[in-house]
Amino acid sequence: MVDIASRVWNHKWKIDPIVRSLIDTDFYKLLMCQSIFRNKPDTQVTFSLINRSKHVPLAKLIDEGELREQLDHVRSLSLSRGESTWLRGNTFYGKRQMFRPDFMEWFEGLRLPPYHLERKGDQYELTFEGKWHEVMLWEIPALAILMELRGRAVLDTMGKFELQVLYARAMTRVWEKIETLREVPDLSIADFGTRRRHSYLWQDWCVQAMSEGLGSAFTGTSNCKIAMSREVEAIGTNAHELPMVYAALAADDAALAKAPYDVLQDWHDEHEGNLRIILPDTYGTKGFLENAPDWLAGWTGIRVDSGDPATAAQIAIDWWKSRGEDPAQKRVIFSDGLDVDKIKTLHREFADKVNVSFGWGTLLTNDFRKLVPDDALAPFSLVCKAVSANGNPTVKLSDNPRKAMGPADEIARYKRVFGVGEQEAHEVEV
Amino acid sequence: MVDIASRVWNHKWKIDPIVRSLIDTDFYKLLMCQSIFRNKPDTQVTFSLINRSKHVPLAKLIDEGELREQLDHVRSLSLSRGESTWLRGNTFYGKRQMFRPDFMEWFEGLRLPPYHLERKGDQYELTFEGKWHEVMLWEIPALAILMELRGRAVLDTMGKFELQVLYARAMTRVWEKIETLREVPDLSIADFGTRRRHSYLWQDWCVQAMSEGLGSAFTGTSNCKIAMSREVEAIGTNAHELPMVYAALAADDAALAKAPYDVLQDWHDEHEGNLRIILPDTYGTKGFLENAPDWLAGWTGIRVDSGDPATAAQIAIDWWKSRGEDPAQKRVIFSDGLDVDKIKTLHREFADKVNVSFGWGTLLTNDFRKLVPDDALAPFSLVCKAVSANGNPTVKLSDNPRKAMGPADEIARYKRVFGVGEQEAHEVEV
Repeated sequence: MVDIASRVWNHKWKIDPIVRSLIDTDFYKLLMCQSIFRNKPDTQVTFSLINRSKHVPLAKLIDEGELREQLDHVRSLSLSRGESTWLRGNTFYGKRQMFRPDFMEWFEGLRLPPYHLERKGDQYELTFEGKWHEVMLWEIPALAILMELRGRAVLDTMGKFELQVLYARAMTRVWEKIETLREVPDLSIADFGTRRRHSYLWQDWCVQAMSEGLGSAFTGTSNCKIAMSREVEAIGTNAHELPMVYAALAADDAALAKAPYDVLQDWHDEHEGNLRIILPDTYGTKGFLENAPDWLAGWTGIRVDSGDPATAAQIAIDWWKSRGEDPAQKRVIFSDGLDVDKIKTLHREFADKVNVSFGWGTLLTNDFRKLVPDDALAPFSLVCKAVSANGNPTVKLSDNPRKAMGPADEIARYKRVFGVGEQEAHEVEV
Repeated sequence: MVDIASRVWNHKWKIDPIVRSLIDTDFYKLLMCQSIFRNKPDTQVTFSLINRSKHVPLAKLIDEGELREQLDHVRSLSLSRGESTWLRGNTFYGKRQMFRPDFMEWFEGLRLPPYHLERKGDQYELTFEGKWHEVMLWEIPALAILMELRGRAVLDTMGKFELQVLYARAMTRVWEKIETLREVPDLSIADFGTRRRHSYLWQDWCVQAMSEGLGSAFTGTSNCKIAMSREVEAIGTNAHELPMVYAALAADDAALAKAPYDVLQDWHDEHEGNLRIILPDTYGTKGFLENAPDWLAGWTGIRVDSGDPATAAQIAIDWWKSRGEDPAQKRVIFSDGLDVDKIKTLHREFADKVNVSFGWGTLLTNDFRKLVPDDALAPFSLVCKAVSANGNPTVKLSDNPRKAMGPADEIARYKRVFGVGEQEAHEVEV
């Protein structure tokens, strides 16, 4: 029987919204948002969308009107009662009331701030300005919308069975990856693929498939909405935007050198256990660890997000040893450009030295490579970053010069302050 | 929204019926049924299920109770009003009222006759006895039920996403075949896969995928129910059971030698055009054509269903030439053990000599080879044949000794009467 009401209801929608919930976002955005809300509530920032893959002409593929409708829809969203109850009452990383009442009260009243959209040649310039803790919540929905609208543009001309086979192929591919990962003993892997996913429904499928296929080796998803609806763990800690904005706010070179540690000092005051994960690469992993205060060596682990992952993991292990810590009690989370082979290799190399976890992103939730002509559904490198804070430009160096961003003179200054010399360039995968 | 009524309704079924309609059968069964109803209404036959693949222990895999429930369900079916209207009013092979009113009146009142089921070791003995035109309608549903119950037994232990990926893989495989066939110019191909399909829903999917993927190169399906619901052509002409039963009814060797031509004489009186397709291999293609009356050379084409298909097609072409016919005006329909490579090869070899069509069966609708452990979903060679008529055993020789059936002394007698010498053995594919 046709469910008539559903059919009529579905056809009443003016658009098919891509982002339908404020918690269809990464868990670490909410953790960071709360931290900013508490520690830097008056910071004004600009976030900007940057398409590193210039060969993908987003403005030719995506209709500006449709893009505006999707962005406007996100601005109409507010936290639902069930979502609020979940955030207030759920246990995250073993802790109840991770989100404080004052933060939740503010979040319940939040609508996302305005956006600025302009076409520049074949690309869009999409920026967000305002209070840091409000603007930063645009990052994930903006990326997800652009990714999915580009996908829809490609799918638009396909037949019904052609579409079904496309998804059949993509499902088969994900499942084959899961079957391969099954052979890895004591695996610990989470979904980090919200931002550059093929679509919400696809990410939701991938999470469920990982859950059935890997059992307890699948530790959860970064996506709060999916974590809530599928009853899996919400995973994530913190990201580059914290040190980038703290650094941009620094009054002088001495304050700049101290900024990344200030971030972690604030984090240290708020969190413990598995949430104490160092993201050391913003201004070069090596220098960051060498100059780190001793209390940081007591943290639980390190997330490796750029450069050669094996090198970075070894630097971390050596650093822990040099500070009298036992690496076997520590955790390394790999999260940069992962796919099955890299996961297997890194696991083989490090599993007997340290606790190893994986945050698997784009090549879990958007591996549509070579599935359509001209590879038109291949994922590409889109980011949405803080580009200025209180009027000062932000800078990121990372362990891969191709991921560096910021004005050239500021990059030079940061390299000097953080003692970053020659860096090895790596392909930016996705 | 959940469609509550549908959900409740679905759970009210005591079983999930495999065959839900009397026209979920091959079109040629209905054509032959009408011919028998007219020409041999008093013939008593026994049909028997034969599992040529002894390594598949059907009685271990399939619960006898479930098998009985499915068979009983088929006995509860009768022609629906819409099905009757379609059979009476639809155009088949360009002809209206293909099914005569007296036949339709009988068919509307038909319930399938009883079955006899007994477990013999790891196999089932399943037989049907009664009037030929009633018993013969058991063939397709009996095969489809056994095939699908065996599949269900294998699927029973699989997880939800594992199942989805299984079908994703099977869909991808079918689609890749379709993509390959797209490259064959002027292809003409139909689905002949009802009897050994994976399931009804799967055959229905395959038909729709062929339709979208091949367009007009896909000429239709042998399955009447699917032809009706998907509005594609119903395809098929006649099968071995006609000459086999006619031969068993022959009083002496002279009558036996004439029997296969009597079949076609009756057919000639009833049908014209594309329904005049010779199936010459029941007692050896070569002898059958050499001894054929001249009026048979005027028929539209030949169906090749055993032996080496290229050899048989060449024999047919040479025969037409020897009778002063132009092969370019004739049609060869290949229908034995086809898959993409064989289709491409045969098309390449014969498309410029004769009109070529393909009736693609098991490897269209049941190619689940190597998709589960132990290859437990691979199709296997199950047939349901007339084994006796009015108390006499039936015999089939075919162009492949491995497809021969009947008592040894009768096989020897038939070989003598039809002048069949040494035959080349071929693997029975499916």
